Amino acid sequence: MKSSAMVRILIKGGKVVNDDCTQEADVYIENGIIQQVGKELMIPGGAKVIDASGKLVLPGGIDTSVHLEESFMNATTADDFYSGTKAALAGGTTMVIGHVLPEKNDSLLEAYESCRGSADSKACCDYALHVGVTWWGPKVRAEMEKLVREKGVSSFQMFMAYKDMFMLRDGELFQALQHCKDIGAIARVHAENGELVVEGAKEALDLGISGPEGIEISRPEELEAEATHRAITIANRAHCPIYLVNVSSMSAGDEVATAKMQGKVVHGETTTAYAVLNGMQYYHQDWAYAAAHVTVPPLRLDPSTPNYLMSLLGNDTLNVVASDHRPFTIKQRAMGKDDFTKIPHGLPGIQDRMSVIWEKGVIGGKMDENRFVAVTSSNAAKIYNLYPRKGRIIPGADADVVVWDPEGSKTISVDNQVQGGDVNLYEGLRCHGVPLVTISRGRLVYENGIFTCAEGSGKFCPLRTFPDYLYKKMVQREKVPDRCINVGSYSAGCNLQSHH
Amino acid sequence: MKSSAMVRILIKGGKVVNDDCTQEADVYIENGIIQQVGKELMIPGGAKVIDASGKLVLPGGIDTSVHLEESFMNATTADDFYSGTKAALAGGTTMVIGHVLPEKNDSLLEAYESCRGSADSKACCDYALHVGVTWWGPKVRAEMEKLVREKGVSSFQMFMAYKDMFMLRDGELFQALQHCKDIGAIARVHAENGELVVEGAKEALDLGISGPEGIEISRPEELEAEATHRAITIANRAHCPIYLVNVSSMSAGDEVATAKMQGKVVHGETTTAYAVLNGMQYYHQDWAYAAAHVTVPPLRLDPSTPNYLMSLLGNDTLNVVASDHRPFTIKQRAMGKDDFTKIPHGLPGIQDRMSVIWEKGVIGGKMDENRFVAVTSSNAAKIYNLYPRKGRIIPGADADVVVWDPEGSKTISVDNQVQGGDVNLYEGLRCHGVPLVTISRGRLVYENGIFTCAEGSGKFCPLRTFPDYLYKKMVQREKVPDRCINVGSYSAGCNLQSHH
Amino acid sequence: MKSSAMVRILIKGGKVVNDDCTQEADVYIENGIIQQVGKELMIPGGAKVIDASGKLVLPGGIDTSVHLEESFMNATTADDFYSGTKAALAGGTTMVIGHVLPEKNDSLLEAYESCRGSADSKACCDYALHVGVTWWGPKVRAEMEKLVREKGVSSFQMFMAYKDMFMLRDGELFQALQHCKDIGAIARVHAENGELVVEGAKEALDLGISGPEGIEISRPEELEAEATHRAITIANRAHCPIYLVNVSSMSAGDEVATAKMQGKVVHGETTTAYAVLNGMQYYHQDWAYAAAHVTVPPLRLDPSTPNYLMSLLGNDTLNVVASDHRPFTIKQRAMGKDDFTKIPHGLPGIQDRMSVIWEKGVIGGKMDENRFVAVTSSNAAKIYNLYPRKGRIIPGADADVVVWDPEGSKTISVDNQVQGGDVNLYEGLRCHGVPLVTISRGRLVYENGIFTCAEGSGKFCPLRTFPDYLYKKMVQREKVPDRCINVGSYSAGCNLQSHH
Amino acid sequence: MKSSAMVRILIKGGKVVNDDCTQEADVYIENGIIQQVGKELMIPGGAKVIDASGKLVLPGGIDTSVHLEESFMNATTADDFYSGTKAALAGGTTMVIGHVLPEKNDSLLEAYESCRGSADSKACCDYALHVGVTWWGPKVRAEMEKLVREKGVSSFQMFMAYKDMFMLRDGELFQALQHCKDIGAIARVHAENGELVVEGAKEALDLGISGPEGIEISRPEELEAEATHRAITIANRAHCPIYLVNVSSMSAGDEVATAKMQGKVVHGETTTAYAVLNGMQYYHQDWAYAAAHVTVPPLRLDPSTPNYLMSLLGNDTLNVVASDHRPFTIKQRAMGKDDFTKIPHGLPGIQDRMSVIWEKGVIGGKMDENRFVAVTSSNAAKIYNLYPRKGRIIPGADADVVVWDPEGSKTISVDNQVQGGDVNLYEGLRCHGVPLVTISRGRLVYENGIFTCAEGSGKFCPLRTFPDYLYKKMVQREKVPDRCINVGSYSAGCNLQSHH
Repeated sequence: MKSSAMVRILIKGGKVVNDDCTQEADVYIENGIIQQVGKELMIPGGAKVIDASGKLVLPGGIDTSVHLEESFMNATTADDFYSGTKAALAGGTTMVIGHVLPEKNDSLLEAYESCRGSADSKACCDYALHVGVTWWGPKVRAEMEKLVREKGVSSFQMFMAYKDMFMLRDGELFQALQHCKDIGAIARVHAENGELVVEGAKEALDLGISGPEGIEISRPEELEAEATHRAITIANRAHCPIYLVNVSSMSAGDEVATAKMQGKVVHGETTTAYAVLNGMQYYHQDWAYAAAHVTVPPLRLDPSTPNYLMSLLGNDTLNVVASDHRPFTIKQRAMGKDDFTKIPHGLPGIQDRMSVIWEKGVIGGKMDENRFVAVTSSNAAKIYNLYPRKGRIIPGADADVVVWDPEGSKTISVDNQVQGGDVNLYEGLRCHGVPLVTISRGRLVYENGIFTCAEGSGKFCPLRTFPDYLYKKMVQREKVPDRCINVGSYSAGCNLQSHH
Repeated sequence: MKSSAMVRILIKGGKVVNDDCTQEADVYIENGIIQQVGKELMIPGGAKVIDASGKLVLPGGIDTSVHLEESFMNATTADDFYSGTKAALAGGTTMVIGHVLPEKNDSLLEAYESCRGSADSKACCDYALHVGVTWWGPKVRAEMEKLVREKGVSSFQMFMAYKDMFMLRDGELFQALQHCKDIGAIARVHAENGELVVEGAKEALDLGISGPEGIEISRPEELEAEATHRAITIANRAHCPIYLVNVSSMSAGDEVATAKMQGKVVHGETTTAYAVLNGMQYYHQDWAYAAAHVTVPPLRLDPSTPNYLMSLLGNDTLNVVASDHRPFTIKQRAMGKDDFTKIPHGLPGIQDRMSVIWEKGVIGGKMDENRFVAVTSSNAAKIYNLYPRKGRIIPGADADVVVWDPEGSKTISVDNQVQGGDVNLYEGLRCHGVPLVTISRGRLVYENGIFTCAEGSGKFCPLRTFPDYLYKKMVQREKVPDRCINVGSYSAGCNLQSHH
Repeated sequence: MKSSAMVRILIKGGKVVNDDCTQEADVYIENGIIQQVGKELMIPGGAKVIDASGKLVLPGGIDTSVHLEESFMNATTADDFYSGTKAALAGGTTMVIGHVLPEKNDSLLEAYESCRGSADSKACCDYALHVGVTWWGPKVRAEMEKLVREKGVSSFQMFMAYKDMFMLRDGELFQALQHCKDIGAIARVHAENGELVVEGAKEALDLGISGPEGIEISRPEELEAEATHRAITIANRAHCPIYLVNVSSMSAGDEVATAKMQGKVVHGETTTAYAVLNGMQYYHQDWAYAAAHVTVPPLRLDPSTPNYLMSLLGNDTLNVVASDHRPFTIKQRAMGKDDFTKIPHGLPGIQDRMSVIWEKGVIGGKMDENRFVAVTSSNAAKIYNLYPRKGRIIPGADADVVVWDPEGSKTISVDNQVQGGDVNLYEGLRCHGVPLVTISRGRLVYENGIFTCAEGSGKFCPLRTFPDYLYKKMVQREKVPDRCINVGSYSAGCNLQSHH
Repeated sequence: MKSSAMVRILIKGGKVVNDDCTQEADVYIENGIIQQVGKELMIPGGAKVIDASGKLVLPGGIDTSVHLEESFMNATTADDFYSGTKAALAGGTTMVIGHVLPEKNDSLLEAYESCRGSADSKACCDYALHVGVTWWGPKVRAEMEKLVREKGVSSFQMFMAYKDMFMLRDGELFQALQHCKDIGAIARVHAENGELVVEGAKEALDLGISGPEGIEISRPEELEAEATHRAITIANRAHCPIYLVNVSSMSAGDEVATAKMQGKVVHGETTTAYAVLNGMQYYHQDWAYAAAHVTVPPLRLDPSTPNYLMSLLGNDTLNVVASDHRPFTIKQRAMGKDDFTKIPHGLPGIQDRMSVIWEKGVIGGKMDENRFVAVTSSNAAKIYNLYPRKGRIIPGADADVVVWDPEGSKTISVDNQVQGGDVNLYEGLRCHGVPLVTISRGRLVYENGIFTCAEGSGKFCPLRTFPDYLYKKMVQREKVPDRCINVGSYSAGCNLQSHH
């Protein structure tokens, strides 16, 4: 343990915001752990005191989807684990979950080890890793098990898009989900109809549409809603909890809501960009500006979309908002100057996630501060089986804490950003609600714009399987006859006998 | 033209029921054509007079899906075009549309010719043919065009189930639908998720479920609802009207309803069996009884299903009820004694379709007599571009007419049925509403249980493409910018310019 | 019968458009009746021949809601039955149904007679009358029966808004609907929550909102959706078919759609204005312009609304589009200069209804020409029990016919309008699709801008009760136990016994 | 403070279940407060140790709706605050909220004082009171304010049913809700269409239906769904959070779900009976048995209802399950022997609420143990502004704790119940999950069937207004222009200017 662990911190006079309530309380931190939360605490001398009067004290953010030091579509992201996690900390995020995306037929294990190799020595905050199930076969099945048992991986990402690259067919996805359920893993699914994406791209290019708007024209939201419906169906058949990523459209959000109403175990993750921006950007006359917004699923043309998705975060239809940070430079994007399908997919956002969601979500009346904590931190902790060690300010929890100024403000700009890349999607947005101090595992790592974290001081955080939040109900259900469960469906079947 | 064409018939004193209204009127028929409809008609002497006092005079039924003389799953249907069309006439149906289902890689054209070869000399009523697009490639594309241009085929059936047999992948289905739209054909789609069907069957057999109930357990309605949603999405992308066949579940019906609400051009066909029976049959202790109900999609376990589907026929969410007649004998079904996946799929029903729908639909309060005509005849005529030559009783129309006794009744039984096979699914059902006289193309072919039709007296009825009922709105829409059409979606897009 | 009845007319070379199909056919008219429809007709000499090559021949429009010579909110409409029906004819409408709205406690019968007194001598086309059930009591009940039996009235309008003026409470509405059902009448219901309208107006005025935008702010669409849901519930309890008028919002439309899906007998009427305009008009800086759009329910702020309602007309969720013509002058509206609640409610539109719906509905890709005929004419004829005498071009029908030029165009302007008032809501709209010739009861009354109809030449058209279109299914259902009918609801109840 | 306050209790070896997670931890209690939660606690000697190995340690239940010592419909409930709260404790409930229902025109304040007068000396656990706003006027408005400011009342119950008794008209309800919002109160609404209830009862009695089944026939679920929709609309207009009580049907549950999806602040309370029983009971041949189930809204005939409601509790559409305990004897019910409208409404259930919900909800796979805590305790604490003092096991909270045996079982029977009345609706139900020890405010009051609580030892628990859980988002929204908030609705309006 490093010397910084000796630090004692008292956060005084603030309001502690958890996902269920807000209370005036001081927070005392020692040895990387929150030791006490309350008023008139008895604490040893020598602690650094942070005055949080008029401020909020939040659990550090957990960004459940970031791409750091990743090569993808012939480009490498503009952030590695060092610059990326620093940017996270500057924004109030104290844990990130990165992606390991093996090429087709490559070993999941080797890809994982390779990523750990570079990340461990660079990360400045806690991190964990998702591994992509980018192809299917007995070897993948075996490696998933090994990753889960020995490597601290508990989440896998499957793709219904990226045909001939990452895409699994329905039967494969079914088997992958069954396997996830057997080993207690979290099944993350990117839902777009990959076959129709290919047809759409072909059609658009044939029509001479080669600019960034082609991304939206070739893969409209109905392809996402369709695949979302299909993914939920497949998961239900496999009795596997499902976690949909990159929920980007109103109709996909409605699919998630419907499934929840039917009692299915479905969770949804959207991103800051989807919850704030719309697809009109693709029609901007400046190619570079338009291209800077290319991601998949694309931002949606219907301008009601961001408002709607933010409301779904507010009403618990969507559970988590990630950055899905994957920054590419204008130059990298220019590979697709004449063909939108060659623009690398991905948007920056690791740094500004929390301030932007606060501005549009809390100030915008879509959620209160507690729900803000839920979608930026606590729900992620619950889903990834870290709760209440993370995602909650209580004695005994990891001291990942942010002092938040709900009255402060800042204007976002690429000019003063920590994260990499040469564009910021929220350029010029004035955010009322900013992190003042970030504490990671008890170390004060960021204060008033000054970093005090060493490269590599972050730790890999192994994840445990079978999170209660996803699995407890599923496991109980396995004991109840299948037909007796589903909402609104016929339950007499539970008494039926099979032929022998 | 045959001598029977000389026959003159006057139907006197009945109530003529069309799909829009009912009127007291006499009907005069000559030369195979309805010549006059009205009161106090002036007609030549020598006509045969049928007293229809207290009776209804209906357009002859059109059964849009029958399998006659078909080999399928190692069995041949118990009816050929002779016995099958006789049974149709006995039940009040005066036109049937059969299926041509080429094996994978086989020529569509040859399969069509082969079917015509045997059908022409046997059919006793008008008939037309659907051709299955059971695989995909340039040859299929070319043959579809030839069938449409030269052979009087205007409808193709695509399968999302029957993996490794008939199933098209999404990209192939998209291309097939695009082609249908280009040539003005009717795209019939059987919607079940074929990949999950395979997984489900494997799982069921692994669990030791080998009886007929396995059909329902392995392909529950969520697989149909999923594929229905997907099919509608694919059709929408291809700008092709879609016609879903074998709509068998409430949730699939809801998908159709939702699409219609969104302004999409979607039509739905269910069958008598789905609208009347439920899947409890599969749990019957008598294997033969249970197996006699095996079809796909299977009958649904939720006992509300038939009632619901009948209501959807009543409120125009579903447009057509066919028999999907495909009779197999108990012995043939016994091939699947130890493995439900080997039981040939298909149910009998060509004969009793109209009486059963009358009993459960009209007497049951789900639809009035006009709507009955719509779902058993007129809508089919409209969709297949035969209207008002068929499907309506007006001067100039083909004299396909049924005299219907709404006060009569009969009890259905295999013992006195005309159709083939050794089981009747409606055994013992008392129907209040029966056909008394059936007239096909002006020939009195069935009266009080006596047939007077010669084998081969029916004619192949070529179908014309681009039916207004499906295409008129679609064609107009092609002229309007895409984004300006959809209900509830963003319409500002119609003004957007692309990058150049 | 007047001498004009001697006129013989042959409409040659056009395409006859009915609600189910379009056919090339000539139409021969004599004695006010369509005598023949077909090709190569045998007709007597001396007929006036109208060349309809390249033109459509439509059933004359039926405008199911017009207010002529009505005093309302301290103002009298700018059209009486003469000018109003002339304007109708100029636009292709050959029948109108006016409103009789008795004051509270006034005799329905006397109000009816008074209206007949002035209308009979003025109307230039066929007309019928709705009577308002604007209060409730034994006398109203008795007069409804008398109107139905002796006066040719079959439709009554009930109001859930206009508190302390026309509004019925739920119990009263229930009894009125029960009575409608007993006497076979058509129950028209204006659905807005009258109590909340009053509260909303109070609140708006208190906030200093006194301009025309107050109409939208004080009675937003949720008040309509609520009342629509309630009205449908009350009608269902009363086993009475319900006909909702002035459906003006997406959410109210959704309520109608849901009810239809549940198998309820519900019909909906919207107006041209709702299907074309939105509530942004109320925010226009010119008070007179804004005030000219005041009606109730108000035009809706959501700009997707008109598109959505037009689609609901296209997909048969809404059945009829009326003008609800009720023109007031700018000066009359100025009574509400300082208080929007004093602006008389009502919009002009009797003349342009058909051209505007053609432009936005048919040209806009929402409906084809057949559906256009359905919503402007045939459905009204079916609902009001006039079909197929009206609403269809067939031999034997009333010769209410319009020759329509789908290639012609005109620009709407108050400057050349026939209807009264000093504003036209569609000012400047270019319509592609215009009436060339209008024939009313066999009389050529309008051609190329010239009227040839005499004041009072129109006739009152008594309506018969128990229209099949509304009642046939209801009557059958009465014979089936109640609980066995509803879609998706529990049907075991049909076997239940009561306690004795 | 009583001597029992001296008691120190250590609950050792159990799993502490809060609404967000479960953890193995000991719980140390002193001075009525939970002092420590964790492992290897340092505690003073002399504490009573409860071995909770293999057991769960839950926050004591909060029963948000009980009627004790209440006169209603000519009968007095079979429990007063003494017997009622003892029964609650025996079942694991440590706080109840009773009802004060003033007669029309009576003083709310006096009714409240009268209730306090008898309750304070009898209650054995903490309690609070709802006051009914059973009529409307300036006096009621003033008394509401006084109750809130001075009397510890924060919740009011309004009725849309009980016409001429408790029912408020829509305008009155709107004003009451506006007032609730102004004073930060919780608006509880009983939603049934009171006018149609009266019409339905009249109709049923006219048809000779006088038995208990009349309750279901006369007020079917559509009356509840309608009123629920209306109540939500009224609350939305009043900008007041709404809390629907007695949600008893699938369709009313759907209304709640829809409103939540739209971002409205709506909460729902159902009861044990609705979540477990259905309306077939009313058709039981034994009048007394059938009558024992009479309550309003009635139990629903559709047998899917309980399953569905339990699922809605599981997925957070419904937030709270109360007992709505209101026990009447068979003899009291016999007043309605010849007229079901005279059977006093109300069901017993205060004692068995938690075990029954555990059995059907947790064992049944509808919710996990954490969600169980949420719906039986924590959500109530949040809504009524008691959280985390109640509803959560953390240091500093009131020591209302239950030791729960998830492996134990008991069979419910009237023969051994503590609660009053001569019938138990769950007679014979075997529950797997039972309370072993109940601790109220740090006093061990119930253990293994033995009570150790003194009459009157419970305390009135004043409630604070403006609970964050309901109001925080509402208050923020007031700062955002109205039109910019609602999900899916048009947001351009936020820029609109009014006329001046």
